[in-house]
Amino acid sequence: MYIVGECLNGMFKRVRQAIEERDKSVIHELARSQVAAGANALDLNVGPSIGDPVTNMTWLAETAREATDAPLWIDSPRWSVQKEVIPRLSGPKGINSTKADESALDKYLPLAVENGAALVGLTIDQKGVPADAEKRVELGVQIMGKAMEAGLSSELLFIDPIILPVNVAPAQPANVLKALAQLVVFSDPPPRLVIGLSNLSQNCTHRNLINRIFLVMAQSAGLSAAILDPLDEELMNALITAEILLGKAIYCDGFLEAYRMRSQPGKS
Amino acid sequence: MYIVGECLNGMFKRVRQAIEERDKSVIHELARSQVAAGANALDLNVGPSIGDPVTNMTWLAETAREATDAPLWIDSPRWSVQKEVIPRLSGPKGINSTKADESALDKYLPLAVENGAALVGLTIDQKGVPADAEKRVELGVQIMGKAMEAGLSSELLFIDPIILPVNVAPAQPANVLKALAQLVVFSDPPPRLVIGLSNLSQNCTHRNLINRIFLVMAQSAGLSAAILDPLDEELMNALITAEILLGKAIYCDGFLEAYRMRSQPGKS
Repeated sequence: MYIVGECLNGMFKRVRQAIEERDKSVIHELARSQVAAGANALDLNVGPSIGDPVTNMTWLAETAREATDAPLWIDSPRWSVQKEVIPRLSGPKGINSTKADESALDKYLPLAVENGAALVGLTIDQKGVPADAEKRVELGVQIMGKAMEAGLSSELLFIDPIILPVNVAPAQPANVLKALAQLVVFSDPPPRLVIGLSNLSQNCTHRNLINRIFLVMAQSAGLSAAILDPLDEELMNALITAEILLGKAIYCDGFLEAYRMRSQPGKS
Repeated sequence: MYIVGECLNGMFKRVRQAIEERDKSVIHELARSQVAAGANALDLNVGPSIGDPVTNMTWLAETAREATDAPLWIDSPRWSVQKEVIPRLSGPKGINSTKADESALDKYLPLAVENGAALVGLTIDQKGVPADAEKRVELGVQIMGKAMEAGLSSELLFIDPIILPVNVAPAQPANVLKALAQLVVFSDPPPRLVIGLSNLSQNCTHRNLINRIFLVMAQSAGLSAAILDPLDEELMNALITAEILLGKAIYCDGFLEAYRMRSQPGKS
């Protein structure tokens, strides 16, 4: 599993304050702790922080880069933010995200290719989030086709079938599982499939429980990446156990610790 | 999910002692508490208890029956036990289990049909437990075909693709998931698919974690029944959350309590 840490998000008060007050220590600490907990990349989102979005994201990304060499995913729906931040950011990086519309892909794919950036393609078009699995698959395949034409390495493309809060869209989690199971057999090697896990449980009770149960169901259906909270120990234990049970890591009595050791930077 | 409580098993010291000493109170309490925790049926296994297996199982089943009207599954590989206990036991009941060999099915299917008993068919033949998903599916389909010929109601047939301990057979959990996903689309309505969950984690560390993560992955793949410990609250929370996320129950803020209320006998 490719783990993208979600904690550097201005939705969280502590991060928003750090962005507004330019307090580097909070950003450094959250970058380091997420990587130490197993994150392979870090998602960066300025959330509702006050100030110019481009300036805030630039500061956030440069500050996170001081603490880690891990890929930094610029999480913003604004083209102005992506266009300004991506070319200037050093080290590995990602664009989170583009929609599946041709007009969006025609802008975002060249930006990704020219900058060697990962790109998250959402299975959403001008009609919004699909209500079923089939449309998600159709849009995912559309993104895959355009990405191949544009010359984006399949390693850098992440398809996101979009998970909605279960309390407002109760049929959608099952549709996302179906879409994952269909998308994963679409090419060999399969495309990288990602979800923004926490969105599932927005305004729900038992958020952590809901998140970790859906995560392992999605892993079982073919999910290969997730934006999640790597500091949630029970979530990471669930993720690791699912990897063991899917035969992607081998059981030993210390399997939780062994998997964590393996994912530490510099450890083999 | 059809939940079969596993706790009345002589493998547990307290139950073995109760069987050997004919202590009804322990059996009554474990029967009632499992049903109260959500068990739809109870598995009965005399384990290594000292004494005649037929006499011990007869006592165990009659004692459990005093405490509950729930289906009682006679869990024994011995034909002598099934042949003696099943016809004499009052109320709903099940035979756990038969292998997929023709010679076994020719004995067990008539016993089930004549007594209106559920029957668990293991996807195992004279060559043992299959090493892959395909053979599990083949044997499952073989059992389904013979059961239909014998006139066993599909409601009473449970196919068990056999889960082995992950520490000795690390590739098998993934094969069981594959087999479930294939068996579930084999007929409409799909056959009832069951596993004896705890076998997965025999002699493993983090047993409860392994059990609950695999359970929800299996639910996602099509599992519709499980022999498990309904007194394991975290396991039941995982099971319920998976049902919500598969759209088999509707989210509300009190979904864990609501699902439990629903499954109480006498509650709608």
